Amino acid sequence: MQKPTLPKGTRDFGPIQMFKRSFLINTIKTVFQKYGYLPLETPAMENLSVLTGKYGEEGDKLLYRMLNSGDFLKDVSEAEFHEGSSAVISKVAEKGLRYDLTVPFARYVVMNQHEINFPFRRFQIQPVWRADRPQKGRYREFYQCDADVVGTESLICEAEIIGIIVEVFSNLKLDQFTININNRKILTGITEVIDAPGKESDFCVAIDKLDKIGREKVQEELRERGFTDTAVNKLAPVFEISGDKQKKIEDLKKFLQNSETGKQGVVEIEKVFELLQLMNIDTSHLNFDVTLARGLSYYTGAIFEVKMLNVQIGSVGGGGRYDNLTGVFGLPGMSGIGFSFGIDRLYDVLEALELFPTEESAATRLLITHFDQKTQEHGLAMLQKVREAGISCEIFPDLAKLKKQLNYANKNNIPFVLVIGEEEMNSGKYSLKDMRKGDQNQLNVQEIIDHLKHG
Amino acid sequence: MQKPTLPKGTRDFGPIQMFKRSFLINTIKTVFQKYGYLPLETPAMENLSVLTGKYGEEGDKLLYRMLNSGDFLKDVSEAEFHEGSSAVISKVAEKGLRYDLTVPFARYVVMNQHEINFPFRRFQIQPVWRADRPQKGRYREFYQCDADVVGTESLICEAEIIGIIVEVFSNLKLDQFTININNRKILTGITEVIDAPGKESDFCVAIDKLDKIGREKVQEELRERGFTDTAVNKLAPVFEISGDKQKKIEDLKKFLQNSETGKQGVVEIEKVFELLQLMNIDTSHLNFDVTLARGLSYYTGAIFEVKMLNVQIGSVGGGGRYDNLTGVFGLPGMSGIGFSFGIDRLYDVLEALELFPTEESAATRLLITHFDQKTQEHGLAMLQKVREAGISCEIFPDLAKLKKQLNYANKNNIPFVLVIGEEEMNSGKYSLKDMRKGDQNQLNVQEIIDHLKHG
Repeated sequence: MQKPTLPKGTRDFGPIQMFKRSFLINTIKTVFQKYGYLPLETPAMENLSVLTGKYGEEGDKLLYRMLNSGDFLKDVSEAEFHEGSSAVISKVAEKGLRYDLTVPFARYVVMNQHEINFPFRRFQIQPVWRADRPQKGRYREFYQCDADVVGTESLICEAEIIGIIVEVFSNLKLDQFTININNRKILTGITEVIDAPGKESDFCVAIDKLDKIGREKVQEELRERGFTDTAVNKLAPVFEISGDKQKKIEDLKKFLQNSETGKQGVVEIEKVFELLQLMNIDTSHLNFDVTLARGLSYYTGAIFEVKMLNVQIGSVGGGGRYDNLTGVFGLPGMSGIGFSFGIDRLYDVLEALELFPTEESAATRLLITHFDQKTQEHGLAMLQKVREAGISCEIFPDLAKLKKQLNYANKNNIPFVLVIGEEEMNSGKYSLKDMRKGDQNQLNVQEIIDHLKHG
Repeated sequence: MQKPTLPKGTRDFGPIQMFKRSFLINTIKTVFQKYGYLPLETPAMENLSVLTGKYGEEGDKLLYRMLNSGDFLKDVSEAEFHEGSSAVISKVAEKGLRYDLTVPFARYVVMNQHEINFPFRRFQIQPVWRADRPQKGRYREFYQCDADVVGTESLICEAEIIGIIVEVFSNLKLDQFTININNRKILTGITEVIDAPGKESDFCVAIDKLDKIGREKVQEELRERGFTDTAVNKLAPVFEISGDKQKKIEDLKKFLQNSETGKQGVVEIEKVFELLQLMNIDTSHLNFDVTLARGLSYYTGAIFEVKMLNVQIGSVGGGGRYDNLTGVFGLPGMSGIGFSFGIDRLYDVLEALELFPTEESAATRLLITHFDQKTQEHGLAMLQKVREAGISCEIFPDLAKLKKQLNYANKNNIPFVLVIGEEEMNSGKYSLKDMRKGDQNQLNVQEIIDHLKHG
């Protein structure tokens, strides 16, 4: 018989990974809720009419499509069959799997626009699926963890996003990180100033690579993308912008003096810093990075990206403000701002820095062990008493050698083991073994419960 | 532009439903963990080789299949195209969506058999997908909530399942319910005694309908399924079994005296009751129902079903013991027992009985309102102080009329609102409105925090 396998690019999350993932996700969720974000979940399946055309041509190819049920070929003509897959695809599949959380959120907002209480803050933590080539750190099923607020243009939301990031990282005990912030209006302004208006997308794609490929290669790419030498030369001062936030802002104001949009972007950055101060939010991790662009073209205001300083890994979060979340579904003018934590990468960061709390790695606090049916039966009464006190507890269900029972406790990281023998049964005093410290105490049932509650 | 829609049989879970669902799911999860069950999650997609043939012919039809990516028609010959969908299906789809949680669990156990610490207790709460005809209460995407322990035949597990059910229902404040229990060996014994050996499946299917169609119709169905008149007549005493548990057990022992398997089933039932008494688990909801059969044919020992007495709805949970979870994947002899809570139905029950706690229906405890930019800015500092105290808090991000801000709080069930005006700003005493009671207090920041923590 063939051994069963997992589809490539997918993963099981066994107990230990689940405990760690839950710790990470609950930490983020708690902060989202503290900032007033409300939970939302959407179905795994969406109509393909909702999904296609939203992620570019490349994205459409990566969508998972569900074969229609029943006689799925019934609407496919012989001619279409001969034309091939691309002529047939829309006839055999009407539904697809969620590709991100933004499009389903936009659909939800449009479908529920009359019931939603705006400004609407929602968070959503669910898997998405992409038929991508699997590789290290890239999966076909992975979780996204998004928070968005729509229906307000207030820059308080920008400041709150930074507050959320700072608090999440602090709660995860991560302190070596940078939050890069920029504003798309500044990038637009730069293209205006260097006389390349309307080429903002190309500019963003090229400048986004500065970190990876360096200044010269970026200039090369700009030329390839049709920027004139004059434009590329005019850009030079932008690469020179440095110093503290105040210095950068002043340099930039000078550079952008002829672009209203650009100046507006700088004002927004200043205002966000001002709000952060009023709110007493720690800005020590914040870095105004004039060359931060972020790929997605729908951003129109602030953009963010979070990077680790002590672990070699891509960005662990990002987001920004958009003007028109729902326009594609016929509801224009829905401005908002969103941020997304990279759960898989943060998991790897916490693993690398050994920051997962060890006490989270077990469900059970106490295993009751025994020598025979009589002592096992004696343990059963105790088992429920411990559970009634709110403590996770198990009894080894089979009659087995003590060594096997202790092994079981060890492998499952169960911190305490109770051994019930004939003598213990008669005296009412039981040996409570602390599996981590290796010591043991003789205690009665109530003392055991107290010890487990506080130990 | 066309309004976007949801696929038929799927649902969005908005904030209010999410709060209620989380309350329900967390209640169950907490009890699972108290009994030592460990979390597991498996991917939404499985290879179709894992899924097909496991749910019967009907089940195979209800599987959602993912169209292979790229040129999915490349292996389909013209002849196969003309033969139709059934000849083409295996060529265009290799993966399918999870149909239940049991088969993925069995796959996980087989793939990880050398790392798993047996007996292995796992719980799993994830959506499953079935291409069924949607109707009231039946969805194409719905959650299952399973707990199983494999690798032990100990009847302590049976007793613990009952303990879990009792505790979950008690924590949900549900007291009008019955846990029906039976044992498949008893049903096998009955078919032996009435001289219809090997017809256990047919017997189970027919007897399972007793509740719905009554005794005569069951007898009719048995005849249709090939049971002789003699067999049907011999069965009569089984319908007459009644009285308390002890009386039923005695009647049944007499009826089954010539069936070793049947007698073994009765002994197991007796033993489970004995263990429940040793464990001091409430048995007042437990009902030994000799005619309980449960459809699934893989059960081999105890079977359970939970029904509500005060809400008209099908069973809200069920499960049983099986001998051979993983045999189909080449790992025989893996005995275990599982139980599944019907999340969607329990949700409806709690809704009908108004048992969802109202304080769970909001994320935010306090909304800070204001009259203008100056008072809003004053509120920003307070906002973070309240959050730092661990209290969920929002400020209305836009400058808007107070009425609009209060409306927002009302619609989102936010229980407290702080109003900051010029006077409040100067005095340092703010009006804290209790939105449920309608009263308001003049308090300073620290008093507000204390009030929100305990109020």
